[in-house]
Amino acid sequence: MFDKILIANRGEVAVRIIRACQELDIKTVAVYSEADENALHVKIADETYCIGPPSSGDSYLDIPRLISVAEISNADAIHPGYGFLSENAHFAEVCEECGIKFVGPRAESIEKMGDKSVARDTMIAADVPVVPGTEGALEGAEEAKEIAADIGYPVIVKASFGGGGRGMRIANNEEEVVQAIQTAQSEAEAAFGNPEVYLEKYVEDPRHIEFQILADEHGNVVHLGERDCSIQRRHQKMIEEAPSPAINSELREEMGEAAIRAAEAVDYHNAGTVEMLLDKDDNFYFIEMNTRIQVEHPVTEWVTGIDIVKEQIRVAMGEELGYDQDDIEIEGAAIECRINAEDPDKDFRPSPGQVTNYLIPGGFGVRVDSAVYQDYVIPPFYDSMVAKLITWGRDREECRKRMLRSLNEFEVGGIKTTIPFHKKVLNNEYFTSGDFDTSFIPTHMIDDEEEE
Amino acid sequence: MFDKILIANRGEVAVRIIRACQELDIKTVAVYSEADENALHVKIADETYCIGPPSSGDSYLDIPRLISVAEISNADAIHPGYGFLSENAHFAEVCEECGIKFVGPRAESIEKMGDKSVARDTMIAADVPVVPGTEGALEGAEEAKEIAADIGYPVIVKASFGGGGRGMRIANNEEEVVQAIQTAQSEAEAAFGNPEVYLEKYVEDPRHIEFQILADEHGNVVHLGERDCSIQRRHQKMIEEAPSPAINSELREEMGEAAIRAAEAVDYHNAGTVEMLLDKDDNFYFIEMNTRIQVEHPVTEWVTGIDIVKEQIRVAMGEELGYDQDDIEIEGAAIECRINAEDPDKDFRPSPGQVTNYLIPGGFGVRVDSAVYQDYVIPPFYDSMVAKLITWGRDREECRKRMLRSLNEFEVGGIKTTIPFHKKVLNNEYFTSGDFDTSFIPTHMIDDEEEE
Repeated sequence: MFDKILIANRGEVAVRIIRACQELDIKTVAVYSEADENALHVKIADETYCIGPPSSGDSYLDIPRLISVAEISNADAIHPGYGFLSENAHFAEVCEECGIKFVGPRAESIEKMGDKSVARDTMIAADVPVVPGTEGALEGAEEAKEIAADIGYPVIVKASFGGGGRGMRIANNEEEVVQAIQTAQSEAEAAFGNPEVYLEKYVEDPRHIEFQILADEHGNVVHLGERDCSIQRRHQKMIEEAPSPAINSELREEMGEAAIRAAEAVDYHNAGTVEMLLDKDDNFYFIEMNTRIQVEHPVTEWVTGIDIVKEQIRVAMGEELGYDQDDIEIEGAAIECRINAEDPDKDFRPSPGQVTNYLIPGGFGVRVDSAVYQDYVIPPFYDSMVAKLITWGRDREECRKRMLRSLNEFEVGGIKTTIPFHKKVLNNEYFTSGDFDTSFIPTHMIDDEEEE
Repeated sequence: MFDKILIANRGEVAVRIIRACQELDIKTVAVYSEADENALHVKIADETYCIGPPSSGDSYLDIPRLISVAEISNADAIHPGYGFLSENAHFAEVCEECGIKFVGPRAESIEKMGDKSVARDTMIAADVPVVPGTEGALEGAEEAKEIAADIGYPVIVKASFGGGGRGMRIANNEEEVVQAIQTAQSEAEAAFGNPEVYLEKYVEDPRHIEFQILADEHGNVVHLGERDCSIQRRHQKMIEEAPSPAINSELREEMGEAAIRAAEAVDYHNAGTVEMLLDKDDNFYFIEMNTRIQVEHPVTEWVTGIDIVKEQIRVAMGEELGYDQDDIEIEGAAIECRINAEDPDKDFRPSPGQVTNYLIPGGFGVRVDSAVYQDYVIPPFYDSMVAKLITWGRDREECRKRMLRSLNEFEVGGIKTTIPFHKKVLNNEYFTSGDFDTSFIPTHMIDDEEEE
């Protein structure tokens, strides 16, 4: 059993983890940068250590400092949260070497899933559908034309070591594919120092569906159903829900089994998320596995009743899950809105600063995960999260209405937030009907996306 | 369908009702006394009317003023909440006469349940167990001795028109019963202007168990399981939970059926609560039916998923329930702590005033129903409720731990609250084991009950 856990993170996820520890009677160690002296996670932890200046590289990402604090404070384990070092295999390894349990998967699993091409090969071997495309790097234009003819246009050329939309080009025919490779290669070279690209079928306007996995260290693996995260702005999730309005129980079972195969293929322990694309014909494709707790985990917690962060800690202590797939039931519907300190009228420009008034919604079916309090100053150095607002309803429509009244109740003074934008989405007829995909925001929220 | 509802109440229950209306797209009218100008229910309602000075008699209890506001604002219905006029049959009648729907049972049902002796007779006729005792008023000492010999000592003598513990005496033998009648009669005369008393078997250290009833206007009646409200201080409930640790599914079914018979016996519509005593041998006895929404309704909402206040409104609009008893399932466990502005170190003396700091707990499994916000001034004129803190867990122990971490997180500055007392109860071994009854606070919290 753990006596003490160090939380190598800040903000709402640090608060989330401390709460889980408290419910398990585990003491907590908070670390913080000089910018986070007054942060909520520092206020509620049992022990606190300042680990450096505001810059993440010198604080939350500084492995030697984190390990030192863990050793000084005698922590049994480190929970990395999400972001920062949570998917850093080297950090997981260092923890292990120092005899500190890393609350997450083994370093090897992180590594395998972190390398896109290895992950893809592993999935193919495990009979998990992937988007059809090149095996490994693209040799040249001729190979590209052949493969594209085989899998059918449109296709997308992507940088092998890229991300964030750079080094990516869509091609609708032979002519375009030649051009796409050239452009993607030079972008990739410029942005990531490596011109290597690969080619995949371009799945048009898919849904983003992800399955929550829980796996213990004794070979038990279950999924907790899916989350629909199709409401994205420039690849950033804004609203997530469970279950997905597009998935029936047969498809859930089929996709869930594939997600479990994905986890088993890398001998996965702890909580993780298998992200997939779902096209209009119910074909689904593995895109990646996030080897950590995810921002949107609360929607799954609410519809299953399972506290995923406590399960992470229990699994890390060597406990068995204690239930199997048949015991997992999905009850009702949950939606999460990520309330950010951003100005939706000004292209979502960050709006840090002092929160002069903070009145959060309450009542039945409402959960707020936040590290903000009245008079708190949101620092400009990190993400712009104010709060995750989660509602539950017996059905999706009750949940949606509850979200709307909660958004209306939510008062955040002194800064701009994304609350008005969330209200517009929640009131949109396509969102209401459940008939949407990842093109929702550029298609239906066009007024707010002038720059796109 | 209702277009607009007037809420004839204040505080957290007014906020609770407004939230339900918003989720049903019904406009809301708030009324307030001069002391409540800055109250939260006034801030979040669509229309607001000041109805008089702080004294309840001249504001929240003033029927003509409430009806006038309903007429001026064109409200279709009035929701009375709990307390104030919620169990006033005359008010329900006046509403009906003015063509305003009263969100609650018919005046006749309120009246029948309000008169203890009528209610008792009605229950006997409906085969609902009542505490054995006199039928109607006690004639004299000889009759008392006979009945007591028949039902067995101890017995309790109670004022027919009393309440709040006055005009009540326990007797353990013939000698004491004669004395008890005399004392109770003179107390009753002095306190209630009527010396009439009756005699019942004294149920020693029972559990207080109550069943939540929902009944529509089409003859459908269901119960939503029980709440255990045994943690009481001087007959005031402090902590409630669902389900009761003392009740298994057979007993739940048996008591639930009796509760449904109780409601049916007075042709009950809307939400109501059948209160019962449960002795050590699983005998249960009807004590009264509360013909309104109850403070502790959230614990039932959480374990059943049913929004009881929305159901009240739907039923009042003439809708059918849409589910039967078999559809109701109890999932997990919920506990509510009533956080009051009282000083537990000074005999729970009220501690109204400005809340200089207000940080409410959040995260998974936590619900807060409150009308307080930072810098709000709790007025001295009404109840001393700060917040209802409700937690849920997959089982009672998870729920209890979550309550403890939530109580630890809860910061209320500037006033005294009952939070420290709640922590002590939640940490008590008898509470933890579930082995407690209405004697819990005087027996186990004795340090806090010096005055008793």
